[in-house]
Amino acid sequence: EGGEEKIHGLTHTEISNLRATSLKARDFAYCPYSLFRVGAALLIRSSNPGIFDHIIRGANVENASYPVGTCAERVAMGHAIASGYRKADFKAIGVATDQLDFCSPCGMCRQFLREFLDLDTPIFMFNREGEYEVKTMGQLLPLSFGPEALPPREMLEGQRK
Amino acid sequence: EGGEEKIHGLTHTEISNLRATSLKARDFAYCPYSLFRVGAALLIRSSNPGIFDHIIRGANVENASYPVGTCAERVAMGHAIASGYRKADFKAIGVATDQLDFCSPCGMCRQFLREFLDLDTPIFMFNREGEYEVKTMGQLLPLSFGPEALPPREMLEGQRK
Amino acid sequence: EGGEEKIHGLTHTEISNLRATSLKARDFAYCPYSLFRVGAALLIRSSNPGIFDHIIRGANVENASYPVGTCAERVAMGHAIASGYRKADFKAIGVATDQLDFCSPCGMCRQFLREFLDLDTPIFMFNREGEYEVKTMGQLLPLSFGPEALPPREMLEGQRK
Amino acid sequence: EGGEEKIHGLTHTEISNLRATSLKARDFAYCPYSLFRVGAALLIRSSNPGIFDHIIRGANVENASYPVGTCAERVAMGHAIASGYRKADFKAIGVATDQLDFCSPCGMCRQFLREFLDLDTPIFMFNREGEYEVKTMGQLLPLSFGPEALPPREMLEGQRK
Ligand SMILES: [Zn+2]
Ligand SMILES: [Zn+2]
Ligand SMILES: [Zn+2]
Ligand SMILES: [Zn+2]
Repeated sequence: EGGEEKIHGLTHTEISNLRATSLKARDFAYCPYSLFRVGAALLIRSSNPGIFDHIIRGANVENASYPVGTCAERVAMGHAIASGYRKADFKAIGVATDQLDFCSPCGMCRQFLREFLDLDTPIFMFNREGEYEVKTMGQLLPLSFGPEALPPREMLEGQRK
Repeated sequence: EGGEEKIHGLTHTEISNLRATSLKARDFAYCPYSLFRVGAALLIRSSNPGIFDHIIRGANVENASYPVGTCAERVAMGHAIASGYRKADFKAIGVATDQLDFCSPCGMCRQFLREFLDLDTPIFMFNREGEYEVKTMGQLLPLSFGPEALPPREMLEGQRK
Repeated sequence: EGGEEKIHGLTHTEISNLRATSLKARDFAYCPYSLFRVGAALLIRSSNPGIFDHIIRGANVENASYPVGTCAERVAMGHAIASGYRKADFKAIGVATDQLDFCSPCGMCRQFLREFLDLDTPIFMFNREGEYEVKTMGQLLPLSFGPEALPPREMLEGQRK
Repeated sequence: EGGEEKIHGLTHTEISNLRATSLKARDFAYCPYSLFRVGAALLIRSSNPGIFDHIIRGANVENASYPVGTCAERVAMGHAIASGYRKADFKAIGVATDQLDFCSPCGMCRQFLREFLDLDTPIFMFNREGEYEVKTMGQLLPLSFGPEALPPREMLEGQRK
């Protein structure tokens, strides 16, 4: 190990990969309505530390009916889940736009991610220069409503009577 | 005025009305899939302080295709917008469930509300006993992505070239 | 009856009301991102034929995060459900835009409406001149996936084992 | 070619691949709330007919806040778009459930797919036995609202004045 400094558990190399993939992912955005490109990258926790980490990318996919479109973060996470990854498999997520300001995931994406990320998982928000601001899942969605908030179905059925 | 104590700008009477309407609104929930009833109430800022405040209620409306359903908070706010209310017209929102725990709005609703609520607008989360926890819009969706975050379209079009 | 001609079960007066309310509802649209105003009107079946029909309106409500916004048809139906109306209470729905072409509900709205409308309920699509094209729920969402398509939960739990 | 019979432009081998991938994709569904597993498979048009077709799979990804989840078809298409595929690259889509009945895509997915599929692209609905019913995009979303329905922005801005 030798004491490389880590940020939210990530090495500088991992952050570089996350940055590069997030920025690159913007090229795949389909956003003819907003013209607002967003790229995302999901860093998968490797079971083998010697192996280069797997990164899954996403981009926003808009629709003529605006509410039907989806965001970069959800495209990346949907791909990951359909690939068999589950809670505890995610080390970090990155999001990048074409702006100088740091742009955070929308509330819908925060809720979607909350189902699978630990509360201390870092969310890196990259601006177009590759600079970032970073917050944890729990910081971006405080007092959140996750899987464990739903009471067991038997209890709900009991309340109905 | 005579110094009635207020909580986030609301009088005890206003909070009582918000509580009663939020709890009552649960009766209108259509939730055959989750069995999880949610009621919401939106307190409209009265232009005439002598007039009893207007409250708009909402309830969750589920769908056989789960992602197509909507939440109580968005039903209430949709109704309000279609009634002509706009940003600055909202004094508070309340949410109520059948649980003993305080249940917060999901991330999607926080984002939907963010478009119209000021960051210091209170969100009252009522449990089934009518007890509440209260947070502001800004506390529930920190670093949020609101209307002002989108750059002017001309700038986006310029970036395309 | 006296033989007034009806279109999909609606009298000319009812269609006129549906048209006027759908067109008027556009004024309440919040659509700073698409600039595409949509109005909707839901004609409630009156239990008392002598009484003027109740009409509930809706308008599109957009969001800085495009997928978080909602459509006019869902705003109207959400309001109706939260008002206590249920399946069998809806006689027709109307949708209006600022275009000369007739504009149909998006697929998400068709699915949302499907939960509450009978398959033969008419959907009136008004252009800006008030002319219309009309189709039934079943015509706009053929082979649809409604509440009855989900197997009983016990069966699903059985399949899991 | 030698006259192999095709169904909606697909060979028997292609349909077999679509079936196998759609059925297999169900294993990756995250559906703790509905218990209703759905798999999807998107057949990419190969630019090289000698090369085995590329297939992208998807599965439903649910959320504690039901409306925030997404469907198998949208996960598959989101992945495809973020991989760089665009309109005209899709030869067919398949959907599979654990039911004996043929289950169609929900209206929201039909709208999402409509942005990228030609109207005559086939949608194969597989039951748990691998038998199928097939309809085209245009048949499942008649009178649809696609990218070409939105007027040029300049026209919309003009209407505002
Ligand atoms: Zn988002
Ligand atoms: Zn919600
Ligand atoms: Zn719609
Ligand atoms: Zn769907």
